[in-house]
Amino acid sequence: MFSTCLENVRIKAPLIHCITNYVTVNDVANILLACGSSPIMSDDSKEVEEITSICAGLNINIGTLNQSTIPSMLLAGKRANKLGHPVILDPVGVGASVFRTDTANKLIEEVSFTVIRGNISEIKTLALGSKTTKGVDADIADAITEEILDNVISFAKELSKKTGVIIAITGAIDIVANEEKAFIIRNGHSIMSKITGTGCMLTAMIAAYLVANPDNLLEATAASICAMGLCGEKAFAKLERNNGGNASYRNYLIDEIYNLDGETLKKGAKYEMR
Amino acid sequence: MFSTCLENVRIKAPLIHCITNYVTVNDVANILLACGSSPIMSDDSKEVEEITSICAGLNINIGTLNQSTIPSMLLAGKRANKLGHPVILDPVGVGASVFRTDTANKLIEEVSFTVIRGNISEIKTLALGSKTTKGVDADIADAITEEILDNVISFAKELSKKTGVIIAITGAIDIVANEEKAFIIRNGHSIMSKITGTGCMLTAMIAAYLVANPDNLLEATAASICAMGLCGEKAFAKLERNNGGNASYRNYLIDEIYNLDGETLKKGAKYEMR
Amino acid sequence: MFSTCLENVRIKAPLIHCITNYVTVNDVANILLACGSSPIMSDDSKEVEEITSICAGLNINIGTLNQSTIPSMLLAGKRANKLGHPVILDPVGVGASVFRTDTANKLIEEVSFTVIRGNISEIKTLALGSKTTKGVDADIADAITEEILDNVISFAKELSKKTGVIIAITGAIDIVANEEKAFIIRNGHSIMSKITGTGCMLTAMIAAYLVANPDNLLEATAASICAMGLCGEKAFAKLERNNGGNASYRNYLIDEIYNLDGETLKKGAKYEMR
Repeated sequence: MFSTCLENVRIKAPLIHCITNYVTVNDVANILLACGSSPIMSDDSKEVEEITSICAGLNINIGTLNQSTIPSMLLAGKRANKLGHPVILDPVGVGASVFRTDTANKLIEEVSFTVIRGNISEIKTLALGSKTTKGVDADIADAITEEILDNVISFAKELSKKTGVIIAITGAIDIVANEEKAFIIRNGHSIMSKITGTGCMLTAMIAAYLVANPDNLLEATAASICAMGLCGEKAFAKLERNNGGNASYRNYLIDEIYNLDGETLKKGAKYEMR
Repeated sequence: MFSTCLENVRIKAPLIHCITNYVTVNDVANILLACGSSPIMSDDSKEVEEITSICAGLNINIGTLNQSTIPSMLLAGKRANKLGHPVILDPVGVGASVFRTDTANKLIEEVSFTVIRGNISEIKTLALGSKTTKGVDADIADAITEEILDNVISFAKELSKKTGVIIAITGAIDIVANEEKAFIIRNGHSIMSKITGTGCMLTAMIAAYLVANPDNLLEATAASICAMGLCGEKAFAKLERNNGGNASYRNYLIDEIYNLDGETLKKGAKYEMR
Repeated sequence: MFSTCLENVRIKAPLIHCITNYVTVNDVANILLACGSSPIMSDDSKEVEEITSICAGLNINIGTLNQSTIPSMLLAGKRANKLGHPVILDPVGVGASVFRTDTANKLIEEVSFTVIRGNISEIKTLALGSKTTKGVDADIADAITEEILDNVISFAKELSKKTGVIIAITGAIDIVANEEKAFIIRNGHSIMSKITGTGCMLTAMIAAYLVANPDNLLEATAASICAMGLCGEKAFAKLERNNGGNASYRNYLIDEIYNLDGETLKKGAKYEMR
């Protein structure tokens, strides 16, 4: 299944509209190209509706959130919804400022997302909802460990049920859940947190997988996360051979996504379902 | 001739003012440094006229076009025109939105460009002109192949005659034309489309070549395109030796530009004139 | 001392708020991660005060200065001052436009900086002050050579005395001075000027060193500059072995910062005090 998800991206080569931060935007563009997709970055309110119309999916990332691009996010999100395109949210740093939290809540209220991907503390912040929406219980720890895994899975399923959105919580262990089932993924390497943009790249890549696999959205999300984690492992192995550092690691990670095939993903994916 | 064009960039080390997109801006800066030039990125309307005055050439790229930078593009372009600096336009994604198309047309009407570089579909969109300007016939296919090459050459020459601008159409085959003659260039490798920014980097590098070779603008443009294509070939050879992916390829490409000398360009350039 | 400064960054892992340019922002983020720190990029006036409050230091860089972020720089700077956080200024290109010069002067008048880092011509421009502030004598050459070294040291000490800010002037020789003493640093390699962002990366890293070494601010600044210069040397050695160019050099430089330990810094640091 995961191998098919990957191959569908390479076959369909979906065009993804990204409204994203200026820190990791180049890596986001290159990872989309690496996995077989193509990026268009556009964030001006005068064109985002048209741009998203010629794309097949929309990736919204609030990493360097700016007042002038919030209307663009809303316009593009609503248009993508009308067109039936998958829309994904990366709520970078939500909870770090009222501005980010309010914006993320507004986006979730006005745009129908297919997937939201964040770390546990970001997803917990979103779960609390806004003043006008009642959130779900987010009384869990800020790191996903084996001990609290069942609690996090229940939390993710409940949040997905409430919102109708696939919830992807990434960290040392990754969880992808809809209201009924969850993938628990154990690929990846801790060095991935030593480069900027791993999360942003992953979210963009999920968008490509969603577009290419419209009938298997949960599996497509999980496949994408396994692919990123597996390539994170392979990139680390290469790094050790070459005595590099985090800059080389960034390049190796994107390189591995570029070279990854379905068979390798199938063999290397470490996941279970609960 | 091409070798002299390259060497003049290294000798004169021109400073290029770039108003460009935030996706590939870092690669644009590094390729300018690689070829012997220097970049200044500045896009605020309060300073672009002063900044362009201390530079020797101007590179305008609409890749992540934004309402607030359009006045800056116009101000900088007009000032550069007054100063006699080469000005180059990369109409990224023109045709994808009314906003981009209108802006590109406005730029072309108000600023005198030395070179416009784009892919065939971008250049075709520009050729149609705006409501107030009558364009040239752009009834040709969207990919340059040997079969339609003569048609594309005629189209490019006609557009150059109408606009007074050197037209550079890049793709599997590249064409650089003024109204009288055209260079047809067959350097390059298809993997260049698997990284973001190849076009942006090339356009910036053309600006540096134009500044350093004021008496041979057509040749300078062709030399720059041959240089990028040749380095694309050399970078691919290195990639195959190292089993890398597109992120490594980006680095190798810039590296090859950094190490390219006139003699190697002369030997490796694959072009004809018609 | 320098080794302790480096190790303190790795132990304390300070979070640095960066309001910086979009050209080199990705490299700035990755060098902060490489040295053991973490970055948050945020420049919207609606959130910068909150964001800087959850950080430990603030890095302001005017590389692609924009009217809309100047209020953010002032808000963040004043809040960081209230919280007692180290604040550092990189006055990129000051002197190249009235807009940059006025903004830099305004920042210096309204925000209390811990360190200002620039090249000699940038620091000279700042030394002249604004119409309302009287500057110090900046009648020295635009490149630091052994011949004028004593003059530059006196200039830096005088400027530090006048402003109360540690002055870091970087170039072929680097000088870090407060009003009483100066470090003269001879690490580095000329190829560092062939990539974009060396200065931006260094300034961000100084911020991390300042936060982690609050009782030794002058030494921390000098240690950070030695670290960058030493890694510049080591990266060049690697480049020569691999026949790379400036893109590879950028990666090697960040890699070397990632792998640098206190002992290696101690052995490789080339400095004297006057």
